[in-house]
Formats: sequence, C-alpha cells, structure tokens
Amino acid sequence: MKDKYVFGIDFGTESARGVLVSTKSGEVIASAVSYYPHGVITERLPESGELLEPNWVLQHPGDYLYVLKDIAKQCLKGSKVNVQDVIGIGIDFTASTILPIFKSGVPLCFDQKYKKNPHSWVKLWKHHAAHKQAQLINKVALERNEPFLRRYGGEISEEWMLPKILQILHESPEIYDAADKFIEAGDWIVMQLVGEEKRSSCMAGYKGLWSKHEGFPSKEYLKFVHPRFENLIGEKLSDNIYPIGSRAGFLSRKMALELGLTESVAVSVAIIDAHASLLGAGINKPRTMVMAMGTSICHMCVDKREIFVPGISGVVEDGILPGYFGYEAGQSAGGDLLSWFVKNGAPAHLMREATSEKSIYCVLEEEASRLRPGENGLIALDWWNGNRSVLKDPNLTGLIVGFTLQTKPEHIYRALMESLGFGTKKILNAFVENGINIDEIYACGGLAEKNRLLMQLLADITGKNVHVVTLPHTCAMGAAVLAAVAAGKTRGGWDTIEEAQRHMIHYEPIVYEVNEENRKIYDQLFIQYEFLYDYFGRAKLMKNLLSIKNEEFV
Amino acid sequence: MKDKYVFGIDFGTESARGVLVSTKSGEVIASAVSYYPHGVITERLPESGELLEPNWVLQHPGDYLYVLKDIAKQCLKGSKVNVQDVIGIGIDFTASTILPIFKSGVPLCFDQKYKKNPHSWVKLWKHHAAHKQAQLINKVALERNEPFLRRYGGEISEEWMLPKILQILHESPEIYDAADKFIEAGDWIVMQLVGEEKRSSCMAGYKGLWSKHEGFPSKEYLKFVHPRFENLIGEKLSDNIYPIGSRAGFLSRKMALELGLTESVAVSVAIIDAHASLLGAGINKPRTMVMAMGTSICHMCVDKREIFVPGISGVVEDGILPGYFGYEAGQSAGGDLLSWFVKNGAPAHLMREATSEKSIYCVLEEEASRLRPGENGLIALDWWNGNRSVLKDPNLTGLIVGFTLQTKPEHIYRALMESLGFGTKKILNAFVENGINIDEIYACGGLAEKNRLLMQLLADITGKNVHVVTLPHTCAMGAAVLAAVAAGKTRGGWDTIEEAQRHMIHYEPIVYEVNEENRKIYDQLFIQYEFLYDYFGRAKLMKNLLSIKNEEFV
Repeated sequence: MKDKYVFGIDFGTESARGVLVSTKSGEVIASAVSYYPHGVITERLPESGELLEPNWVLQHPGDYLYVLKDIAKQCLKGSKVNVQDVIGIGIDFTASTILPIFKSGVPLCFDQKYKKNPHSWVKLWKHHAAHKQAQLINKVALERNEPFLRRYGGEISEEWMLPKILQILHESPEIYDAADKFIEAGDWIVMQLVGEEKRSSCMAGYKGLWSKHEGFPSKEYLKFVHPRFENLIGEKLSDNIYPIGSRAGFLSRKMALELGLTESVAVSVAIIDAHASLLGAGINKPRTMVMAMGTSICHMCVDKREIFVPGISGVVEDGILPGYFGYEAGQSAGGDLLSWFVKNGAPAHLMREATSEKSIYCVLEEEASRLRPGENGLIALDWWNGNRSVLKDPNLTGLIVGFTLQTKPEHIYRALMESLGFGTKKILNAFVENGINIDEIYACGGLAEKNRLLMQLLADITGKNVHVVTLPHTCAMGAAVLAAVAAGKTRGGWDTIEEAQRHMIHYEPIVYEVNEENRKIYDQLFIQYEFLYDYFGRAKLMKNLLSIKNEEFV
Repeated sequence: MKDKYVFGIDFGTESARGVLVSTKSGEVIASAVSYYPHGVITERLPESGELLEPNWVLQHPGDYLYVLKDIAKQCLKGSKVNVQDVIGIGIDFTASTILPIFKSGVPLCFDQKYKKNPHSWVKLWKHHAAHKQAQLINKVALERNEPFLRRYGGEISEEWMLPKILQILHESPEIYDAADKFIEAGDWIVMQLVGEEKRSSCMAGYKGLWSKHEGFPSKEYLKFVHPRFENLIGEKLSDNIYPIGSRAGFLSRKMALELGLTESVAVSVAIIDAHASLLGAGINKPRTMVMAMGTSICHMCVDKREIFVPGISGVVEDGILPGYFGYEAGQSAGGDLLSWFVKNGAPAHLMREATSEKSIYCVLEEEASRLRPGENGLIALDWWNGNRSVLKDPNLTGLIVGFTLQTKPEHIYRALMESLGFGTKKILNAFVENGINIDEIYACGGLAEKNRLLMQLLADITGKNVHVVTLPHTCAMGAAVLAAVAAGKTRGGWDTIEEAQRHMIHYEPIVYEVNEENRKIYDQLFIQYEFLYDYFGRAKLMKNLLSIKNEEFV
C-alpha cells in the first residue's frame, strides 16, 4: 500500500507548530512553525486600539486560521507529498481559550458592531480577569455540595470556561446576548475545518465541567450562579461531546481549497496541547506519568478506574485516551521559575561565562551539578506562581530557607530545581495515596530536553526513572496520531490510538536512572520540604504578605 | 592654659586607626591608619609556614606594636604638636583576642621553642575552632546552674576567652603549661605601654565571665570543666580588674623612646572597640541605644540597674561607663548580609549601572528606595550568620518568603535591609520587656554612614528616631576620651568621661525621623517577622538542613 500522510497541528500560546507525518512509519516529512500575527494581546484591542484592563489576555481568532494555512503551505511546499495522499488533520490547542461566535461560526469580534468590545475577542487560557467569577462558582458549588467538584480536586480555576463566560455575562450582557455560542478555540478550529461543531471530551471535561456519566452541572446549580446561566447548556454551549480519537468530519470544500488539500481529509476532534503530549510520547497505559514541562508543568496519567484525588486539576473519562480516565495535575511554575532566577538572580560573574554556544542556563547547571545532594543547605518551596496541585492555591508564594554567608548563586539555582522535583513528588504521592500507582515518568517539552540536571534530580527525588522523550514536536505528533485514527485504517490511517502509536511513534528516550545514594539523601530532604509545605500551605503568612502588599491591613 | 593633646588608638580586625586630638576642643589634629603587616592569619603560621586547621584565625602580636609606632609617627610628623603637650593614650581593641605570654609580657610565639605551635599565637576574636570547648563550658554551667550564665543571656560564646584557653589546654597542654599568663591583646598593648598588666573591666566583663560583685566563676565550677582549670584564675589570669575610665599607668621609658613621647603620658585601661563607640558618640546616659554597625552589628546601652535580660550578650558593671551597668547585644550579620547579596545576588543589569562614583550598593539602594513598605511582598529572617541575640543560636540560617515571578533583585535587597531592622526591633523589645527602656538610637560605623535607606528603615521599623554619628573614627575618639580621663584635669585632661565628652565630642548627627505612615505598615510586617522568628527559632528544620549538609542523617 502507498504511503499516506497526516498533519498534526499544535496551537500553542505564541505560535503553532505543524508536522506532516507518514502514517506507516511515523517519519516526519515536513514541519513548520508559524507565529500568531497579533501574538498575545494584553494592552490594546486590534484595529480599534481600545485599552484593556489589567490581567486581560486575549487573542485574535483570525490568527489561528492564518497559521493553519501558513503551516499547511510550508509543509506541502517543501515536501514531495501528493496532496491526494494526505488523509487527516489532528488538532491540539491551548485551553480553556474561548470565544463567542454566531451560529455560522463567525466570531463576534469580526462584526463591526462588537469588535470594539473586548469581550467579543478570544480569551486566552491565561486571561486572569475572571477571578471573582471563579470564586462565585466555587462558593455556590461548595454550599450546594455539587458532585462535580470532586472530579476537580475540590475547586475550579479562573482559567476555565465557565468563569470566563460568567465574566462576559457580568460585564457585558450585550455580548452574552449576541453570542449564539461560546466555544473553545480548539473546537472552533475544528468547526472551521469541517463546517460543524464537534466538542472535544478533553476540553469539555478538563475545562468545561462536563463528565461522560454525570454530564454538565445541573440547571439548578447554574441558576444559583446566575439566573441567566440556567439555560447556558444547550442554549449557548453544545452538549454534544465527542471522545478523543473520534473523527469530527471531513474538510469542507471551502477549507480544502484554502489549504490546498482534498475533501477526503479526515479531521480529528481537538485535544488540549499538554494532553496531546501523552499520545505523542507513545504512552497508552496506566502507571506511567507523563510530564509536559514548559513554563509550567502538567502531570498526566490514565487509569481504568475513576478515583477522586483531592487537589488534582481533573479526572475526565475519555479525556486523553478513549476507554480510560485521564488524570491531570500541575505545577504552576516550571521553566518560569528557572527563567526568573536567570533574569533576577544570575550574578555578573556567571553571566560573563555564558557565550552564544553556552547559555547562562548551562553555566548555572554546570555549577549546580558539582554539588552533592544537600550540600547547598537550602530548601525552597516552588510556589513562585502559586500552587496548582495539590493545594490549589494561587495565592501561595515562594520560599527559600537555609541561607548562610557561604551560599552561592548555584546553590540557589539547584535548590529551585530541587523544589520542582519535590513539588512533583508531592503530586505523585497524592496519586499513589489514592490508589493511582505510578512506576515511571516520561518527560517532554523544552524544560525536559534542555535540563539534564533537572531530569536527574527528578529521578533521584521521586525514586522513579525518568524517560525524556527525544521526539521533536511531541504535542504535534500526538495530534498526528489522532489524525491517523480519524482517517481510519481503510483510508490508510489506523483504527486505534495504540495501533497508530505503534506505527508512528519511534524514539529512543534518554533514561535518567535513580541514583540510590542520592535518593536516600533526598528522602531526608523531602521530609523537610513536606514540613514547610504543610506549614506554609496552612499558615496565613503568605496571604498576609500579599494583603499588606495590596495595602489591605491584616 | 595651653592646649593639650591625646591619642585615641582603635585596633580593629585588619588595621588600626589613630587620632591625635585636642582635649580642649576635640579638634582632630592628625589621624592615621596602619594595616597589620601579617593581616588576619587563616592558612599558615608566619615564618614556619605551619598549616592551620579550618576555622583557625590568628594574628601576629608584633603587628600591634608595629602599627602603634607607625600611627604615633604618622600623626606627630604631620602636626605641629609639641610632644611635651601629648598627655595621654587611650586604647580600644577587638575582643576576645587572646595570647599566651611569659611573666615578662613576651608572647610565647616570639620564642623559638614555641613559635611553630599555632597555640602560641594570638587567637583573634573570630577564631571559630573552640566550639566544643564552649559547649562543655555551657553544659557544665547549665548543669550546675551557675549564676554567671544569667549575665550573658543564658549562654556563652565560643568567641570568648575561656573556650579559647580551654582549647589550648585540650589541644596543647605544653603551651598551657609554658604560659605564665593568658591575656587579652588590648590588655597586652596596655601592658607593653606601661610595663604592667592592668586588666580592663570591659574585656574581663564581656569576654572573661568576670563581674564586679560576683568575681570570676568559682574554682569548683572551673574544676568541673577541667581539673587544671581549678586554679586558672590567679595562676594564669590576673584577678586585678580596673574599671573603664581608670589610668593603667604612664608610658615606660622604653616605650616613650620608641613612640617619641614623654614618660608623663598617661595610658588608659583598654576598652573593646565596639564599646568605645558609645563614648565616641558622646553618649553617657541611659535610654539611648548605640549601634556599632559594621560587618556585624553591636547594640549597647547603659543603665543604673543590673537586669538579667535573656538572650543578650552580656551585662557588665563599669563595662562601658563607670558607675553604670553596660548592656550589649548583637546581630551576627550586618554589612556582611548586604555584601553577600551584592556578591551573589546583584544581577548583571544593575552591575552595569554601577560606576566608580556610584557603587553597586548605591544602585541597589536607589532601586530599593522607590518601593513602598510592603511592596516587595517579602519577609526575610536575617540569620545568614546565625542569631546572636536574642536566640543565641549560631546554627540558625537565613530565610526569605514571599517570592513571585514578579520579584526583583531590589525587592530582595530591601527585604534584607528590612530584616536587619526587624532583628534590631526584636533586640530592643527584649530590653524593653525586661525594663530597660530605650528612647532613641545612635548609629555609627560604615554601614550607618553609607546606607541612608537602611537608617530610615531602622527608624520606621523600630519607631525610634535614628541619629547617625557623623564623627569620623568614632571608636578612636572614644579611646581619646579615655586618654583624657586617664591624664586627668591637673595634667590638661578631664576628670570624668562626661566632662571629656562635653569638651571633646562635637558633631551634628544626621537624624532619621520615624515616618508614622510607614511605621504602621512595618508594625503589620513585624507581626509576620515575629511569626517566622518564633517558629524557625524553635523548629528543627534549619538544624536538619545543616546536618544533612554535613552528611549526618536526621
């Protein structure tokens, strides 16, 4: 049989990356990166120049279509692939990244009448202006003891879909009224491709409070949140949800023309970008934790059982792999924490050692690598951006203890790396204590690829071997796997995710094995970390400092 | 009456500074600095090149005589003062800086037989190799409930005289045997000048466990520490103690010749360097706290009553001012803490702003000055070098809490400065809670002169106006006051310290007044500091980190 090809397209925060992959061998025929022309919008609206409030973070939906076409064009141009042989497109996308649209799928921000209203634009996942709405949603849910809470570790985040929609309702009822639908941008791109909405179980589950068995939160509960919310589901949000691995449809004639492809290209239901990395890493069974390590860190695993683990981000049936419950937890600062140190703490004498070949990160890592475990005498709490799991408290802050006059920058840098390891161990333990056992760790993303010391520390601290995924574009490869499954075996794809992974995902992981000597020392240090964790997780001190900073008296 | 002149000579850690001062007006006729030729000896013995153990810190007693003559020569050469009109020499010296000597006053290290033995040399105050001996001395005292402990806040330091002598007895009994006397270097210089030993009440009191009313620790106690210690007092240590303000004698013929002075020059009993600054600042009454601010910080005040304040360094009758009880407490990191930050935490972009006119300290201070109190969102525990008062625990370590991804280097720098203020407030409160009230603060030393923001923070945090002493060479001026009193009014000096200060100490302090708005915020922040202070002062965590660092399991 002739080779067939699929696109995997990974929509990130600043740009999208695409791969064109052979379904038979997994060979990457072409890849491309394309930046959103408007980037991340935090100051002024496009065209009108309207000023935004603090913490607003928007995007331009036209950018998504632009990069999609750009990537298809770049990949097809450089390769000798016959467009007839391209059989699928898989999409992964940041979430919860939402926009209001008309029935036709046209975003409200494309309409002259609404484009000056910031609420008509895409709210990016890291739009942090719906904090009050999240508080209200949590409060009412807690009061009513809503069963959905336990699927989300006891609390939902302001980054998710409902707080963002409620913000629109509170602050701009005219946009709420005018919107026929609110939609995840990932689902919107799929809708653009196939001509109809096919909501992703991953996005609806992790970000939209949906569950395969329990459905959405009840009308009664939603009415308590806001009277207009009673009919939100059905009226403004579709309740047709499709599991990961299903086909959303085929390319519409219009899109086929624009992308230079045929109408027989199958399109997968979208998946969240981090979650795609589990598929791209070739994982399809329980007991393996996949860590997507970038500016923040996302921990994922699957299990046959639904267990409500306190403090995690969510458990969603069919959310990552069909037939499994997908689990997600996270650390809200990862690479961000090390970048913070490089920007604010790297001293001039080490900066001078950095060259174009050897970054300051490498210089610091080299210095930090020379230290024995415990030699820095320091412990840090990795809460520079709050704690996402298992305390779920964005208002916690970072701490370092153990300074002496002999403490050096590389001591601190290593302590920050160690704190990321300890934070992961806390998450691992939360899973294990609730019956989700983990044997090994797979790590992917820039932070995992670039920081060998961090990977070794992760192994020594957690006591689990760490496998670094050496495949470039892991997320996009995960999306390509979904594209092959959307096409199906009869068209030259595959019928199951496992099958697609077996044929398409090939790489030799770099394995960091646990050093038992170091592990013993880190077990001692972890006791100290936990002591700080439990203490400052409960104590009011960090909150008091934030209150004083905000000129509120405590 | 013709003008008369006195020398004040301040023996510091690296060098000595001298002033030649008019007793009538206080005018500084000449001043000079002279560095110890052998500096601070930490690696090898002079001449023999014998290697030293870690934490050993020695000096060469010949250096003290060298700088004394050098300073006298420099001052006399440049001035038109007739040597007949020089009537006194006052000495202040670091302590406890001790050496073993023969009856003649000749140091054992000058003898061929002993010079290769490190124990024959001067042990500088910061010789930190008598830790075990201090532990033993404290343990036995605690077990026997020795009354002297309460004068020293409950514990004595390894930097003091008895642990250092006990180290010699433990490690080199031949030196202990050969020594006719052990003596403070300040008392030794006085002995060199006048030909006989006149021990200072300040040095014997703060560093030698002596009290005017209770004398030295009992023979019985000392015997428990070591059988050979039973007769230490009397046998190896003089028990003739002279109060501050007394005359030790007049220059011997030999020294008069060597210094180019007359035999009618009166010599004062020595005082500890930090304590001389209280006299040099013109303070002679209770309710004023003098802070000598250098690499570490020393807090001093006087009172008519003897009160045992837990956690302070010591209370000594006639220890600073005759007729008063002198109180001392301290912070073990002061300027050291800010220097640590500059060396290890100042980022390249701020280093580039520093010039030969504007140091990196000024750049950081300027940035930190722009912040509102509380704006940094941080609290630090200033224990980079342990806590000297009121916890008296050298094994505590530093802590910073409140980091976010927005935390900047100037935020941290300000937090470190604030922590010095909070630490001082804890000491102030310890005094006040025990009945020693303080109305205002006088600050002197390099740290006080150079850091305006630190002085303002000190005022706003403590709620006391801070007066920065603008006199150069404050300690040497204190020694000059003692020289004038040693000479007495009949010879052209003065009969009391108060009289001498009134005529000789003139300066306009820079006053940092409490900003009441800021004070309110710092009161809130101090509650958070105390919370951390009490918690980590008791918790084992910092000790555990040190144990793990030292490869001991916890």
